Amino acid sequence: MSDATTPVAALKDGIRRFAAERDWDPYHNPKNLTMALASEVGELCEVFRWLTPAESAASSADPKLREAIADELADVANIVFLLSEHTGIDLSEAISAKMAKNRIKYPAPAKPAGGE
Amino acid sequence: MSDATTPVAALKDGIRRFAAERDWDPYHNPKNLTMALASEVGELCEVFRWLTPAESAASSADPKLREAIADELADVANIVFLLSEHTGIDLSEAISAKMAKNRIKYPAPAKPAGGE
Amino acid sequence: MSDATTPVAALKDGIRRFAAERDWDPYHNPKNLTMALASEVGELCEVFRWLTPAESAASSADPKLREAIADELADVANIVFLLSEHTGIDLSEAISAKMAKNRIKYPAPAKPAGGE
Amino acid sequence: MSDATTPVAALKDGIRRFAAERDWDPYHNPKNLTMALASEVGELCEVFRWLTPAESAASSADPKLREAIADELADVANIVFLLSEHTGIDLSEAISAKMAKNRIKYPAPAKPAGGE
Repeated sequence: MSDATTPVAALKDGIRRFAAERDWDPYHNPKNLTMALASEVGELCEVFRWLTPAESAASSADPKLREAIADELADVANIVFLLSEHTGIDLSEAISAKMAKNRIKYPAPAKPAGGE
Repeated sequence: MSDATTPVAALKDGIRRFAAERDWDPYHNPKNLTMALASEVGELCEVFRWLTPAESAASSADPKLREAIADELADVANIVFLLSEHTGIDLSEAISAKMAKNRIKYPAPAKPAGGE
Repeated sequence: MSDATTPVAALKDGIRRFAAERDWDPYHNPKNLTMALASEVGELCEVFRWLTPAESAASSADPKLREAIADELADVANIVFLLSEHTGIDLSEAISAKMAKNRIKYPAPAKPAGGE
Repeated sequence: MSDATTPVAALKDGIRRFAAERDWDPYHNPKNLTMALASEVGELCEVFRWLTPAESAASSADPKLREAIADELADVANIVFLLSEHTGIDLSEAISAKMAKNRIKYPAPAKPAGGE
C-alpha cells in the first residue's frame, strides 16, 4: 500500500469502515469531526513547537520522531477523510476547484525563457 | 477527477508543483506547515463554531456553506499532502500502520452471529 | 487568590518567573508560543469534541471533567500571558482597543425603553 | 487601563457584558467557545506561520504587525475569559493549582550558591 497506487477513496473507505465497526458514526457530524481535527493538529503542533524550522526539517530522519509524526499525520488525514465522507464533499474535486481559484489569487511568476 | 480514481500521489504532486512554481518551498518546512495547518483548521472551526451538531450535519446541503466547507477542506488536505511530501512520510503507509495500532487500542465490539 | 482581586500582571509575573527558573526563555518566542497555544487548545478540544453542547455546559459540574477543563484552561491562559510578556502587548489595553472596534462592527441591538 | 492594575475579573465582566448586550449567551456553551478559541488561535497562527522564530520575536516592533497580533491576542484572551465565566472556573485558582502540579512535574534546576 503506497500513495502512488492507493486511490483517495480507498483510504476514505478504510476509516469509514473502522468507525462503523465501532458504532462511532453518531458522533461523527462535521462539527464534532472538526473539533477532533483541531485536537489532532494540536498533537502535531506539540511535536514541533520547540524545534527550530531547520530541526523540524531534519526531524523525520530520527526514527522515534518520524514515527510520532507519521502517527499524528495519519490521525489528521483520517479525520479529513471522515469529514469528506460525512459532508459528501469529494476531496479531489474540492482541491481542483480551490486550486483554480488560487491560480488566480496567486499567479505564478513568469519564468525566464528556457526555464521550467 | 474524483476520489474514486485519483491516487493520493496525484494530489500530492499537484500541490507540490503549485508551491514550486511560486517558489514557496523555502517556507515549507514541517514546523511552518503545521502552523499553516492549524490556521486552516481554524477557518473550518470558524464555519462550525456556532452551529449545533445537527445544523453542521445539514450544512453541506446549503450551496454557500458547502462551498465554504469544500474550500477549507481543500486547504487542509493540501497542507496534509505538503507535510507528507516534506517529511517523506507516505500517507497510505502511515495510515495503515496507525490503524493496526488502533485496532488493538480500540477493539471492535463482537457482533451477534449472522450480523454485519 | 481569585480573579476578583488578582491583577492580570500578577498572573503574567507568575508564569514568567516559572519559565525563567527553568531556563525556558530561549524557546519562548512568539512563533513557538503560538504553536504551544494551538497544542493546548487542542487538548481542550479533545475534552469537548464528542460531547453535545448541552453536555459541555453541564461538564464543569462533574469533578473529574472540571479538573481536566481547569487544567487545560490554565495552560491556555498561561501561554496567553507569556505571549503578552514576550510581545510587550498589554492585554488590558489590547482588549480595550479591540472591543472599541467590535462595538462598531457588532452594534448592540436597541433595547425597548425601560430595558437594561 | 493596564495589566498592572486591572483585576482579571474586570476583563471577564467586560466581555461577558459585551456578549449579553448582543444576546450571544445562548451560543456560548463551552463546546462552542472552545471551537471559537481554536478559530482565533488559528488567526494568530496565520500571522506567524511563515516567519522565522527570530522574525516573530521582532514582529511586535512593526506597528502594523503589532496591531494585528494585539487584536488576535485580545480575541483569544476574551474567549478564555468567556470560558472561565461559562464553566465557573476561576482562572487565578486554576492557574495556581496547575502550577503546583507543574512544579512537581518540572522541578526547577538547582542554582549554584550565590546565583539568582
